[in-house]
Parts: sequence; structure tokens; C-alpha cells
Amino acid sequence: MARSRKREKIMADKKLVEAITSMDVDFAQWYTDVVKKAELMDYTSVKGCMVFKPAGYAIWELIQSQMDARFKETGVQNVYLPMFIPESLLNKEKDHVEGFAPEVAWVTHGGLNPLQERMCVRPTSETLFCDFYKNDIQSYRDLPKVYNQWCSVVRWEKETRPFLRSREFLWQEGHTAHATAEEAEERTIQMLNLYADFCEEVLAIPVIKGRKTDKEKFAGAEATYTIEALMHDGKALQSGTSHNFGDGFAKAFGIQFTDKDNTLKYVHQTSWGTTTRLIGAMIMVHGDNSGLVLPPKVAPVQVMIIPIQQKKEGVLDKAYELRDRLAKAGCRVKVDDSDKTPGWKFSEQEMRGIPVRIEIGPKDIEAGKCVFGRRDNGEKIDCSLDAVETEIPKLLDTIQKDMLEKAREHRDAHTYVAKNLDEMQKILDTTPGFVKAMWCGDQACEDAIKEKMSATSRCMPFEQEQISDTCVCCGKPAKKMVYWGRAY
Amino acid sequence: MARSRKREKIMADKKLVEAITSMDVDFAQWYTDVVKKAELMDYTSVKGCMVFKPAGYAIWELIQSQMDARFKETGVQNVYLPMFIPESLLNKEKDHVEGFAPEVAWVTHGGLNPLQERMCVRPTSETLFCDFYKNDIQSYRDLPKVYNQWCSVVRWEKETRPFLRSREFLWQEGHTAHATAEEAEERTIQMLNLYADFCEEVLAIPVIKGRKTDKEKFAGAEATYTIEALMHDGKALQSGTSHNFGDGFAKAFGIQFTDKDNTLKYVHQTSWGTTTRLIGAMIMVHGDNSGLVLPPKVAPVQVMIIPIQQKKEGVLDKAYELRDRLAKAGCRVKVDDSDKTPGWKFSEQEMRGIPVRIEIGPKDIEAGKCVFGRRDNGEKIDCSLDAVETEIPKLLDTIQKDMLEKAREHRDAHTYVAKNLDEMQKILDTTPGFVKAMWCGDQACEDAIKEKMSATSRCMPFEQEQISDTCVCCGKPAKKMVYWGRAY
Repeated sequence: MARSRKREKIMADKKLVEAITSMDVDFAQWYTDVVKKAELMDYTSVKGCMVFKPAGYAIWELIQSQMDARFKETGVQNVYLPMFIPESLLNKEKDHVEGFAPEVAWVTHGGLNPLQERMCVRPTSETLFCDFYKNDIQSYRDLPKVYNQWCSVVRWEKETRPFLRSREFLWQEGHTAHATAEEAEERTIQMLNLYADFCEEVLAIPVIKGRKTDKEKFAGAEATYTIEALMHDGKALQSGTSHNFGDGFAKAFGIQFTDKDNTLKYVHQTSWGTTTRLIGAMIMVHGDNSGLVLPPKVAPVQVMIIPIQQKKEGVLDKAYELRDRLAKAGCRVKVDDSDKTPGWKFSEQEMRGIPVRIEIGPKDIEAGKCVFGRRDNGEKIDCSLDAVETEIPKLLDTIQKDMLEKAREHRDAHTYVAKNLDEMQKILDTTPGFVKAMWCGDQACEDAIKEKMSATSRCMPFEQEQISDTCVCCGKPAKKMVYWGRAY
Repeated sequence: MARSRKREKIMADKKLVEAITSMDVDFAQWYTDVVKKAELMDYTSVKGCMVFKPAGYAIWELIQSQMDARFKETGVQNVYLPMFIPESLLNKEKDHVEGFAPEVAWVTHGGLNPLQERMCVRPTSETLFCDFYKNDIQSYRDLPKVYNQWCSVVRWEKETRPFLRSREFLWQEGHTAHATAEEAEERTIQMLNLYADFCEEVLAIPVIKGRKTDKEKFAGAEATYTIEALMHDGKALQSGTSHNFGDGFAKAFGIQFTDKDNTLKYVHQTSWGTTTRLIGAMIMVHGDNSGLVLPPKVAPVQVMIIPIQQKKEGVLDKAYELRDRLAKAGCRVKVDDSDKTPGWKFSEQEMRGIPVRIEIGPKDIEAGKCVFGRRDNGEKIDCSLDAVETEIPKLLDTIQKDMLEKAREHRDAHTYVAKNLDEMQKILDTTPGFVKAMWCGDQACEDAIKEKMSATSRCMPFEQEQISDTCVCCGKPAKKMVYWGRAY
């Protein structure tokens, strides 16, 4: 017993945060340290796949439930399709199979026998939805179909990073079919806007909405729209995409319906998805050198009550009373009544990104107050014990708004303008961020920029600006203003 | 236009239910007809895998959310582990691999390259959880671990049936680790009781709780407990299982912790699961010749308002008003304002198993009333328009209780006692149901009964009765009373 007690004492005296790398020294290592120390995930024996530990999965559940409610308000219905795609089905749409075949996992044996036809584990389910819609859609009365599924998908990535890129990841994929091209385009944009609002209102992440260039669009899509966020290190992260397929898949799969005018027509389709990457985005936008900083709306624990001198009479009782009152007011709240020191508990609450801690000790109780500590900016606020359940919900709202504002300021401060390649190169090398620059529309210029400075076109934003008249790369007349950046 | 209109008119005149087989003529065909006509599922190009259509998936969502809330009340935390298991990991526990290896799907290629070690798609995740716990558990302070995941699993079944047996199915699997054998046994029984209560209170399905014989227990378990339900056709359905592994897996995987006395000990583990089979159980327990009958607690639509003479002024307005009032009262409610005939709408509501319909026409409105139609027993009830939102929640509660009672009466009326094999055979051939009979404890007798009459031991119920002193099969002294039956 002696030995393990001793070790625990040493650990308790040491701050948990000492173990993490400073984000200014090595951002990638800081990220890895945070996801491990905040116990969001763990590595596994399955190469490139991760475990979502309770603290990580609980964030995903909060994302899911709030996004799903928004989906359903727009008429989305959830379904579930098989995880396997027979090879012949994957091969039906030419661009799509070229895009995905090199990175799928193949099932070749079922039980003790080889399969007659091998199947891949879905990397995305356009082909399965098309195969389903082909039989399910007969008449204009069957339209629109606005279906979504929450599931996991597999892409055989070579390099993986927790939440950002893994061989298996969790996501939602919406797949819709419509009678007209206009309606499909409307749904594509509607879902992109839903994603953007969700990121801003729930994850406190501001995003740029725009259209992908042909080079960057989804395999098989007519148009891909994207929301792009800027991480703390100045790198971009594609955070959600919405695709308009036109009638390309419908023609490849023969999805036709009898319209009101009694003629056979092809449907117009869309798909749209977001993934557990959103968790990675949240970490890299809001986190700091003390660990995770979670926006209140997706924090599994919003308030941690930390008793001071908890062995003194009445302290724990008051802590539990506050917890019960806050829970009744709809807060997600816990008391840390473990036998660790308050300092250790503070570090843990900070590492886990819990938005507010409440400190309460004998002197506070005597004075009829407690102290709120804000995780996002370190501010301390005295609060009368009577007012805790009215003040905390207001404070959580304030934190949610302030976090978005802070992220927006950081993003705007790291968004630059370049008129030629030298300017662009200098920005990317010295003050990484988004670079707004004009583009002629030629893929050769995108390729050149990628080759020279490892930056890609993030999107052609809906809000266009006229920075100059000529392409940042070739100097020919410019067609579009593009956001460029190095990306995850 | 003319042709499709004509076809629609013919279909509207024909009752939707005419298309389904009577359950007394062919129960299996009735089942298939119901799942198709109620639009719960569809077949796919992927052999043995099905699509959950919106009406089917919405039932699963209601099962999930209500079961998950019960889990969390007992301290369960959700996680997510990879869907792949490397072959060497699956092979670590001898009984387990023997049980599952013959029925798994093997992934042999990732992208364009063969894998160094093939991996199976998880048929269940004991081995993955063990591999995870091995690193995650160090001290008694890390215990207990009470984790669960909602996911899909794959078992390469030869014969499949919608919801009951498919190559891929949705489920939850709980996996726990404890410091002592007693605590593990307690959790195993706690979860079995949770499942039983859930089936009775939410699905309105009464179940027998008991222990599986060694022949029927889970591959690698010390003890398997089960809940067994009786379907309308007298066949049994295993509806949930809870396993106590003792320290068998812990020893195979080396999952040890330092206990309070500073010695290294092996953990004791459990696992427990329920699947989308519960949807099949619900269909086969409550359904009738008009289609599905859903218990209110899992009915995606609980009330369908069907306007009569909806073109008459004020009818639709009143229907929408009732809908809004009921929605405000917390009911899941819709108005069928399509241009189908009321008769067609009635058939559809019946086929889909919607617990209550509200009929409202000009005469009702004049009389200040509407008519409730109960799906479970066909009863019609007049209700004052003012009282709709107070009466409907009460009626839904009543229906929920009555459905459980009706199912319990059916189950009890189809539970028989046999003292010898002749009696057992006669029961199974003429009045199928559960057969209670004594057993000596010898597997040879189970094998003989299975061979002779295709019946299996369902469980050794917790509530034992002394039917006779001798084994129903061999006549030797009996050790246990067993429920026997033909099963899905």
C-alpha cells in the first residue's frame, strides 16, 4: 500500500498540465497531448482506428442530438442502409468509383467461404442510396426523399490523426432525391447553411461558406459546397460539405419517376455530411495551454463544483445542494468530491475544458457566496449562493457567445490578402492563415500553388470581393476570389 | 396523365390490407407482408442485409433513446470502439473464437494492397473491449468500468429474416469490468432486469427471466442470462442476454489491477446486449390481420387525425387545431390531409400500427365532439373537442397497459406443462407455446429433444416450479425446471 500511496501523492502535487506541450512550441504535439490527457480518445491495436472514450463520445452525442433536431425541423427522416457495397454497385458511377476505389477496405470472405463478389465497407453511401431509390421512387408523389443516416464509414488512409483523419470515422450522411434541378440546388444550399449555423451557434466556430473548385469537388458531384474553419495554428479545416449531383447518379442507376405530366424523368440528387472531425475542429479553435475549452452547448459537464476544505462541516452538503439546484435548472453539473487536492481538481477541470467551475469553501459559505471561474478567459466572479441557478445559465450563454466572438476575431486577424505569389508565399510562411486571392479559373494555377507552397483552394466564397483584376498565379484575367490555405 | 390517375383510383378503392396474408394461414408470410406494407424495411442488393426505412428506423430511435436513458441512470457511459478485429485478437480467447470465427466477414485488402493480417468485421466486441481495458485499467480506482456502445455488427448468417436475423444488425453491447466476482454478477443480473422491465414497460412484451444451459450459453461466458418472449404463433424469441465472464477473458488478455491491498488481481467482466430483433418481437407479439400494432411508447406517430369530408369548410382547420393542441401536450401526432379516401386512410393507419386515430367531420364538429379509434382493440370512443388533449395521453397510457396485459394473457394461455416426451411432442405439434418441463442437467437430453422435436431449452427460469421429480427426457432425477420451445 505504502508505495502506491506515495506515488499518488507525488502525482497530486504535480500539476496535470505540466505534461502537455505548449501549443506555441509544437501545435501537433499539443493537440495529441490534449486529446489524450482530456481522455477523449485512445489508440487501439487496430491500425488507424481509435477508441472514443466516454468524454469524447459524450461530445459526439451532444453534437448528434442537436444537429439531428435541426435536420428534423427541415423534414429530414433517418434511415439505415447496409455497411457493405458489392463491387459492381460501387462501379456504376465512373467518377465516383475512381475517387473512392483506391481507399476502401475489401471484404472477400464470409465465414469460411470466399464471396462470389467482393464487397467494400462503405466509404460513403451514394451508391447504396441510389440502388434503394431506384426501387423506392416511382411517381412524383414519392418525392422528395430527404433521408439521412448516422453511421460509421471506412477509408483506408495512410496517415491518421485522432478525430481529424482515421480509417474508420463516425458521421452523418444525408441523401436526397428531388423532382427538379432547382429543388435539389435549394436543398444543397439549405443544408450548407444549416451546417454553418450549427458550427457558429453550437460549436462557436465561425465558418466561410463557399463553393469548391472542380479540382476539389466530390467524386461524382456537379457542385460541392463547403464550410471552412480556421484553426488556432492558422491551418484550415473543411468542416462540412454539401453536394449537388444533378441527375448524374440518377442516369447511372436509372432512378426515374413519372411526373405530373405523365412523362418519365430522372431525379436530381444531393448529399451532405459532417463527421467527428468537428470535435477536432473544436479542440483546435478553442483549446489553450491548459487543455481543452468546450463551448457550453456541447460540454458533457458544463459546471464542476469544487469544494475547498471539503472535510469541514457543511461544505460538501452545500456543494451537493448547489448541484441539485443547478441540475433542476437544466445544467449538466457535477461535484468533484474525490480526495484529490483542490489544485489538482482545478487542473483537471481546466484540462477537460469544463466551461465553469464553482469554488466553494467554509469562508464562502459564511459570506453567503461562491466563486465562479470561467474556463474560456480565466475570469473569477463572486455570486450570492441564492442566485446560483439564475446566474449560471446566463453565464453559460455569455461564454458561448464570447467564444464565438473570440474565434471570429482570431480568424479575421489571420485572414490576409495576396495579389501575387510572393505575397502569398510570405504570408503562409510567416503568419499562417486564410489567404484571399484572385484566380483565373484554370486548374493549372491551383496545381502550381499546391506544388510551390502546399496550399490548396479552400473555396470560392459566396461573398465575393474584387481584390484585383488578375489571377494571383498566372496574371491572366481573374474570374473568382478564392480562399487559399494550408489545410488539415 | 389519364392512365396513372386511373390506376391510383383503382388502388384507392381497394383496401391496403387485402394485400396481406392472414396470420392464421401463413404466419411467416404475414410477417413479411407486414414489415413491407408498413414500410418498416426493404430488401437490398446486399444479400442478407436490409434497409431500415424511416418508419422502421424511427422505432429503433425510440427504443434507443428510452433504453439509453435507463442505462445512464445506472451509471453506464457510452463509448465507440473500432468495427474491425485483427485475427490475432479474435483468437485470444479459445471458446470465443470457436463460437464466432465460422460466421464472421473477413477484410483482406485495404485500398489496393493486401493486409498483413486479415481483420474481421466485429460480430461482437468482447475482444476489442479487453484489448482496450488491458491498458485503461491499472488500479482499483479505475474500476468499475461500465461502458456501452450502440453500433452495428456482422454475422454471416445463411438464412435471414427482416429484423430477426440478418447479416448486419444494429444493437447495443455493454461491456463492464469489476474488482470482484460478486459485483460482476450483480451487474449481470441488474442489466437483465433492466431489459425485462424495458420489454414490459416500453414494448408491452412480457418476458421470462432465466439462465441459459451450458449448451446455449455465449461463447466464452461463465453464465448467460436471458429474457424469453413468446410470439403470437407460439414460437419463442430470445430478446436480450446478459453474460457473466468471470475472469476468463481477463486471464486470456491480461487485464489486471492493483487492488487496495496492493496486490495484482484480474478483473471480472460482463457483457449484455439487445438488438433490432426487439422490433421483430414487437411485430409478432402485437400485430394482427390488419397489420402492425405499436405500443404508444415506441410509436413514431401515436395519433393520426383523419378528417372526414375534409373539403367542407372548417374541417381541416379543426384537424390542424387538434394536432397543434396534442403536440403541445407532448403527443406525436399527424393529420392525414392527403387526397385519399377516409377508408384508405383508415387502412393505412391500421397497417402502420398507429395506436389511436381521431375521426373528425362536419357532423362531429357541429356536435362539439370527435371519435377516437383504438388500434389495439378496435374500440371507438366519443370525446368532447375540449377534452382531446387531456383524454388522449390517458388513453395512450391505457393502451400501453392493455397491450401488455393482452400479451401476458396470450403467453400464459400458451404455456404448458409436460411430464414426458409424448406430452411435449403433442403440445408442440398441436398447440405451440412454451413447455415447462423438468431436466436432469445432462446435455444429451437437450440434444435428444432438439433432434426429435426441434425444440430447445429456452432457459432455466429464476422462478422455479417442481413439476415432477424426473427428467422429461431420460427419467433420471430432475435438477431444474426448464422452459422449452421452438424458437426464432
